[in-house]
Amino acid sequence: MSPKFDAAFRAQFRDLVLWRRDVRRFRRDPIPRERIDALLEVASRAPSVGLSQPWRFVHVDSPGRRQAVIKSFTDANEHALAGYSGEKHAIYANLKLAGLKEAPVHLAVFSDDGTHTGSGLGQQTMPETLHYSVVAAIQTLWLAARADGIGMGWVSILDPKAVTRVLDVPEGWNLVAYLCLGLPAEEHLDPELERHHWEHRIDLAPLVLTR
Amino acid sequence: MSPKFDAAFRAQFRDLVLWRRDVRRFRRDPIPRERIDALLEVASRAPSVGLSQPWRFVHVDSPGRRQAVIKSFTDANEHALAGYSGEKHAIYANLKLAGLKEAPVHLAVFSDDGTHTGSGLGQQTMPETLHYSVVAAIQTLWLAARADGIGMGWVSILDPKAVTRVLDVPEGWNLVAYLCLGLPAEEHLDPELERHHWEHRIDLAPLVLTR
Repeated sequence: MSPKFDAAFRAQFRDLVLWRRDVRRFRRDPIPRERIDALLEVASRAPSVGLSQPWRFVHVDSPGRRQAVIKSFTDANEHALAGYSGEKHAIYANLKLAGLKEAPVHLAVFSDDGTHTGSGLGQQTMPETLHYSVVAAIQTLWLAARADGIGMGWVSILDPKAVTRVLDVPEGWNLVAYLCLGLPAEEHLDPELERHHWEHRIDLAPLVLTR
Repeated sequence: MSPKFDAAFRAQFRDLVLWRRDVRRFRRDPIPRERIDALLEVASRAPSVGLSQPWRFVHVDSPGRRQAVIKSFTDANEHALAGYSGEKHAIYANLKLAGLKEAPVHLAVFSDDGTHTGSGLGQQTMPETLHYSVVAAIQTLWLAARADGIGMGWVSILDPKAVTRVLDVPEGWNLVAYLCLGLPAEEHLDPELERHHWEHRIDLAPLVLTR
């Protein structure tokens, strides 16, 4: 029997989407591994091109490896800061862009670009859909985590090749995202980048065309 | 006041994720434009790198343009079929891979690769995160649509350059997805590609490593 979703559920789902944040301020309380793996089970029911299921998850527990990732972030962040001037430079310098040091859980998410699962269906003219499938799993994970009271942050300010080397993963795995998870220290409806005047939400209406 | 999500909501959310399907069998009933645009409002609360909000949506209403997209699909699909042999060829030939002819709503989703929104934050070492942001919006749309009783299918078997030309969108817009939406003719817990023996779900456990 297929489930029915009523107006109350839809309102709660909307709240879930609106209150999901890119979290960079974590409490240090540990999160049991089983709780994260239960979230990954839900995430792995995301759509994937040709049912290719290319997502691969790596729990990064080793302090040495975490330190190498933090170094990659610090280097890339300093380089990025140097590219801004004036007011943007001042704002950027004060932004907290990752919670790598505090987050109890580090999770690297890869696409197995060499997978034969799905036999290439749907990928021939748009091969990027393999990575897009992994992103769909990540957004599903983000929402599932928020519903479970766990905050998540996506760190893209790092050298993906260096991080991949550090994590010693099988040949052909391509880093899609490096994630931090843990209990959030704060909860907000507005994005951190809006609260700290980096950017604001733009109106959707002009972004929807008809042809 | 930040919302609380209880176990009942989490169970329903899990059902939502599990019962989301890539729909190719649509009823022809029209869907009011406002209902789709309300879903897009929720989708546009997806995460985006640096709050860049690069998603751009195009309702494809013109019969001529829809016909051109169907032609691109048919060509790409024939080409893909020719690449399979034996049992895979036989199965592929019988799969229904798109509902372009029946779906009342055609929605093309682009990334505005030239947007200045977000000022490039987070994109310097991983520029692909701009497109990934659009994918996060698409997965959010997919779940919001399913909760509202609307099925969605993602058609990647087409020539993205040809479809972009046909849709006459602003310079710098890059096609991320071509979507069909409408009331589903059937509802299933198992993916169509599994039901028709193209591929099966794989166990998650071996896909989760620790480093």
